[in-house]
Amino acid sequence: MTDDPLARLEATVRARRGADPASSYTASLFARGRPTIAQKLGEEAVETVIAALGPDPAAIVPEAADLLYHLLVLLADADLTLDDVRAELARREGVSGHDEKAGRGTA
Amino acid sequence: MTDDPLARLEATVRARRGADPASSYTASLFARGRPTIAQKLGEEAVETVIAALGPDPAAIVPEAADLLYHLLVLLADADLTLDDVRAELARREGVSGHDEKAGRGTA
Amino acid sequence: MTDDPLARLEATVRARRGADPASSYTASLFARGRPTIAQKLGEEAVETVIAALGPDPAAIVPEAADLLYHLLVLLADADLTLDDVRAELARREGVSGHDEKAGRGTA
Amino acid sequence: MTDDPLARLEATVRARRGADPASSYTASLFARGRPTIAQKLGEEAVETVIAALGPDPAAIVPEAADLLYHLLVLLADADLTLDDVRAELARREGVSGHDEKAGRGTA
Repeated sequence: MTDDPLARLEATVRARRGADPASSYTASLFARGRPTIAQKLGEEAVETVIAALGPDPAAIVPEAADLLYHLLVLLADADLTLDDVRAELARREGVSGHDEKAGRGTA
Repeated sequence: MTDDPLARLEATVRARRGADPASSYTASLFARGRPTIAQKLGEEAVETVIAALGPDPAAIVPEAADLLYHLLVLLADADLTLDDVRAELARREGVSGHDEKAGRGTA
Repeated sequence: MTDDPLARLEATVRARRGADPASSYTASLFARGRPTIAQKLGEEAVETVIAALGPDPAAIVPEAADLLYHLLVLLADADLTLDDVRAELARREGVSGHDEKAGRGTA
Repeated sequence: MTDDPLARLEATVRARRGADPASSYTASLFARGRPTIAQKLGEEAVETVIAALGPDPAAIVPEAADLLYHLLVLLADADLTLDDVRAELARREGVSGHDEKAGRGTA
């Protein structure tokens, strides 16, 4: 077992693919399909935006956790991993040569 | 230096706080302030949603990278870290006792 | 009574401000306050985006109706009206002199 | 010519379909296609959410105008009209029998 909670969550999420929809919230998301997963990701992003503008910075943390969780579900549903995203981030470092733009490359 | 591109990106982002806005895109985001950062996060989430519904799963990866980058900027702007989010994910594991709900706890 | 369903809906929404939250969904939204109203608007926008990318154009209609409804709730909560938005649209016609940009002016 | 700026804007938008993309912003949106139109709608919704949470209620008006404009572009792109949305709102009045829920029916 990894000691990174994000990696543990990704492993858990991936293990739920194809499971009985009644067995867990994650399994039910996979069963409902891509549009529902995308909708949830969008909703959590809106909640993160709203928390970002609120009076209590600490309120951002649970919303960011929800957002990451739903991003992991989306990636798994598309047969992608967080390591694919890490590889993209690493690629941008190399391409841009500007650390400060590593996060968005030519976007 | 860590060999995790996500950790490297977070370190880079945090180092740009307070820098000359003209020196980098990240520094300009911090200078423009929270509402602009939140707006960008929301825009990237919409792009991720659209990629999620498109014909090419691989198109999700760069959008997810943009989304994570802007989430790291938001966290840094609020003096929070990805480890704060990891701690929240770990806390949910303990609280729920149901691995499959680790990602969202009682939400 | 006007014969424009949009105007009728706006009148209904405005009449619910300050009503018992238990009396209607609209009254409960006003009672929960601006962040909740903004959240719902954002969620309906995401649903409209998803319907826009789906196979059935007709599915856009109910999502657009939900989006307009929540926009009317937001406007009423801020003591604004759809006529304020119409005045802005009319102002842009005059300013731009280009019909085709009437909708967004210099934005 | 109608004296409703919203109706005039819809007529203008619809007239731009199929026009040279270089001739107007609206024509360029139609040329770029549905995902771009949906993306813009989502972005304007996020801006509306952010204005809704800001200190100045009047700032909501131009964002609501931008949101409505992009909704009209989306409807036109899908061969739908604001009257289709009005018909949906009218239908909900009849179905629900509860004025206060006219805007969302059983949603």
